Amino acid sequence: MAERTLHGTGATPRSGVGTVVWYGRDISLPDPDGVEVDSETEVQRFADAVDTARAELESEREATAERVGEDEAAVFDAHIQFLEDPTIEDAVETMIADGIPAPNAVDAAFGEHIEQFEEMDGRMAERADDLRDVRDRLLRLLTDGERVNLDDLPDGSIVLAERLTPSDTAQLDPERVAGFATVTGGRTSHAAIFARSLALPAVVGVGDALESVEGETEVVVDGDSGEVLVSPDDTERAAAASDSGAAVVDESVETTDGRHVEVAANVGQPAELEAAAQRGADGVGLYRTEFLFLDRETPPSEDEQYEAIREALDTFPDGRVVVRTLDIGGDKRIPYLDLPEEENPFLGERGIRRSLDPDSDLFATQLRALLRAAADGDGTLAIMFPLVATVEELDAALDALDAAAADIEGRDADAVDLEVGVMIETPSAAFMADELAARVDFLSIGTNDLTQYVMAADRENERVDDLHDPTHPGVLRAIHRTVTAAHAEDAWVGMCGEMAGDPDLTELLVGLGLDELSMSAVTIPEVKTAVSETEYSAASERGDRARLAATRSEVHTSLDT
Amino acid sequence: MAERTLHGTGATPRSGVGTVVWYGRDISLPDPDGVEVDSETEVQRFADAVDTARAELESEREATAERVGEDEAAVFDAHIQFLEDPTIEDAVETMIADGIPAPNAVDAAFGEHIEQFEEMDGRMAERADDLRDVRDRLLRLLTDGERVNLDDLPDGSIVLAERLTPSDTAQLDPERVAGFATVTGGRTSHAAIFARSLALPAVVGVGDALESVEGETEVVVDGDSGEVLVSPDDTERAAAASDSGAAVVDESVETTDGRHVEVAANVGQPAELEAAAQRGADGVGLYRTEFLFLDRETPPSEDEQYEAIREALDTFPDGRVVVRTLDIGGDKRIPYLDLPEEENPFLGERGIRRSLDPDSDLFATQLRALLRAAADGDGTLAIMFPLVATVEELDAALDALDAAAADIEGRDADAVDLEVGVMIETPSAAFMADELAARVDFLSIGTNDLTQYVMAADRENERVDDLHDPTHPGVLRAIHRTVTAAHAEDAWVGMCGEMAGDPDLTELLVGLGLDELSMSAVTIPEVKTAVSETEYSAASERGDRARLAATRSEVHTSLDT
Repeated sequence: MAERTLHGTGATPRSGVGTVVWYGRDISLPDPDGVEVDSETEVQRFADAVDTARAELESEREATAERVGEDEAAVFDAHIQFLEDPTIEDAVETMIADGIPAPNAVDAAFGEHIEQFEEMDGRMAERADDLRDVRDRLLRLLTDGERVNLDDLPDGSIVLAERLTPSDTAQLDPERVAGFATVTGGRTSHAAIFARSLALPAVVGVGDALESVEGETEVVVDGDSGEVLVSPDDTERAAAASDSGAAVVDESVETTDGRHVEVAANVGQPAELEAAAQRGADGVGLYRTEFLFLDRETPPSEDEQYEAIREALDTFPDGRVVVRTLDIGGDKRIPYLDLPEEENPFLGERGIRRSLDPDSDLFATQLRALLRAAADGDGTLAIMFPLVATVEELDAALDALDAAAADIEGRDADAVDLEVGVMIETPSAAFMADELAARVDFLSIGTNDLTQYVMAADRENERVDDLHDPTHPGVLRAIHRTVTAAHAEDAWVGMCGEMAGDPDLTELLVGLGLDELSMSAVTIPEVKTAVSETEYSAASERGDRARLAATRSEVHTSLDT
Repeated sequence: MAERTLHGTGATPRSGVGTVVWYGRDISLPDPDGVEVDSETEVQRFADAVDTARAELESEREATAERVGEDEAAVFDAHIQFLEDPTIEDAVETMIADGIPAPNAVDAAFGEHIEQFEEMDGRMAERADDLRDVRDRLLRLLTDGERVNLDDLPDGSIVLAERLTPSDTAQLDPERVAGFATVTGGRTSHAAIFARSLALPAVVGVGDALESVEGETEVVVDGDSGEVLVSPDDTERAAAASDSGAAVVDESVETTDGRHVEVAANVGQPAELEAAAQRGADGVGLYRTEFLFLDRETPPSEDEQYEAIREALDTFPDGRVVVRTLDIGGDKRIPYLDLPEEENPFLGERGIRRSLDPDSDLFATQLRALLRAAADGDGTLAIMFPLVATVEELDAALDALDAAAADIEGRDADAVDLEVGVMIETPSAAFMADELAARVDFLSIGTNDLTQYVMAADRENERVDDLHDPTHPGVLRAIHRTVTAAHAEDAWVGMCGEMAGDPDLTELLVGLGLDELSMSAVTIPEVKTAVSETEYSAASERGDRARLAATRSEVHTSLDT
């Protein structure tokens, strides 16, 4: 048996074994009892570190103000303020005078303030991140610490981290990493979604216990049970090492009675394209273009977007790549786009609402890039618009697409082989599915948001967790209404929310009439297998029973019998 | 012509004329140029005021901690902290040393911090209110100022105020007030809803310009045009004085082809009951029990709730009183109930979610009070549950009602004449309307929330204002689905959102099959008249055309032709 077992939330139903590399915690503080502290020297070292940090921040501030704008540079002002906060400075100096080394004093003094901010509500809690950044900057200067290089890890590494941001995961080389585990995060955190896209074993939200696992230790990360096994025994190690997931199914699949169901991948970062192809995706059912906008200080150019979409189309030369136009707002923020603070961001200016106004220029650039890529790329491009609630919005988006086509000089845009669709995420879109479907080629149901609005339950709020479940019959009825309306208009219907990637629900979704299911790469083999084992006629009857059930437990009973 | 015309948002489609009484601004600061300031005396006066304020706050803190609890007393700690803030103290003393009187210095020093907080996001902005409270406390001590007594105003007063809180409006004697206007607030602010309930002329959101109107001035408040006329001419005065609204219709009404439609009132405070009866309400379609919980430090007892509901039932001896069980959360907060901070409060722990857990004790008390009032009162009681999303929630609420009935000793609860219903506010409830209706006597559509969730558009967020409109066909389809499902189960269907009170939409709503419309008292006469002028068969065809329209503008065209 393993020396210790830690518990978190499984992010990917796979296991991996490897050697621990800590990321972002490699700043090791001196043992405060083991050193003789010369207070004067330490105070001076602290003062020097503050000066250097201020100089760094000011130069980064200036560069950002020039390249992006004053608003975006403001975060550095906040950092400088924290750096110069007299309360923190006093606390550090008092501790040093008491014989504590400068790095430990910085760690303790900032730690106290970080905790205070963390106890405040959601938005103030974000200031804790600013304080952490300032603390880490000072500690790096005081300890000469450097972060592990994520794209140059030894083979078979298991990465442990406080959390992994999009810029971290973008660097991670999936060939060399056997899995990861993080202190924070839930099933829908960025790190968890990333793990599922790359079929990487991962456990998130382990809590502080994870920090006690030393570097170089051997661990098993079991993304199915949500466990981290520290120093596993031989049996445990072998079981994890042999878990390569379900067998990949490369060809397209149909039910036992011959109904074809497309099984596609949700992708964001380029690294995920290859993983999707390797896991047998028929194509891409959701390309999240937001990722092209992350970790930069200005929006990507038309050419950069063209290249990224070209790469996707060329990865699936015989398939279809469904690209969602820029979908920000809600919980997705991009610092250099000036998003408003809203009391209920999930009910605010999101998705197509922003693309029509105020981001219409970005939208036009993106549509031009997409049209050019569609003309030149191998696969078939499909464009879909997020968070549509009215026919008016769809009409305006289609007008923008026509205008973008007219803008592309020397090309016959009408000749481009292209599909256009609408995401069904708002209840209004489900109610208006007939009118929407009459205007486009396909509908794609985003179950995460649709469930959130149908049930009036924030998908990030644990207090209403039980309501945020797409197997409540209210959600199934919204899905059924959408499918029926689309088929009456000869449009196909896909699904690209979390629900689509759950092999236990495949029969239900096929039975409800979905033509395409799109998911994180990891469960593609399981879902393909589930489709090929489903009898459509029986599934269809079962789907009707499920949507006509009164309660969620009746739905689940109908699935089990 | 009036000397000046100020523009705001009309809250009630009525006009009134009267004499200005300022509320909450009666603290008059000394003219800083007109006084010789003895700095030493003024600094001492300031220090004394701070001491007195601290003593007051500490005693209020202690009383609250004892009566309510430590958590609730914490707001006083925040006030004491602001009171003792060294930055503010220094600023005040510096200004006094520069020859500025103490009250003006306090006003200026706090003002600067209040502005800073106001510029922050929603929740931090609330701290501005704390600062205002501390400032006003100090100013009252420094100027011997006292507030106008709202329940003892001269006849024909027009109240002007920065804003009117629920505790302010509760004191207002509607017999003596000819109208009011406020600096802040929108159509859905508490003050605006209150004005509509009492049919009081009112304009909200006039902005800072209102502050230039002196006390004792004669003004016209025109709640239809949203204008405040300062020193009106004879014609303007006469027009406002003669505007007593549409003729009251006391009897119940039916369409020209004999379909009865109940027209009821939305009420909260006791004063609104009498106004509703005077405006010809058939009964109460929405009794908001939250108001019984406001302006107190502990929840009302079972007996207090019993008395309040009894009063409502006795006001409408031949009518029905529909009481909504406690509906807090979202934007409705009650300080002594420990509501969580949520990122998207409208998608959080609200309504029945809280009543089932964690407020199940409050819920049981309320249900006992309602059952006792139903047994003793003259009118017929109907109980409805807010924000239901699942059949499971309804079943649990019905179980709680049974348990409450069993708790009432010596009474035969089954013999109580009572109706039970569900509010249709979540899209899930609309999709599940058949199952919900099968379990209850009636459904009541709350269009404010239903629109918000169907359209995924926060009703308080101006950026998505255009989407938050119940005449989008997506919302009409949700309403139609609800009505059809209810009628198939022999349940009646009412509507108690803002939409129900718009006489321009009465024909549409009657056509969609609503059996009851409930609204703020002010438009009851207009809606009753509109019902009696409607031909149901024609309205029904028109309702079908509207809900089958593709866009909102098509809906409006179908209503106009």
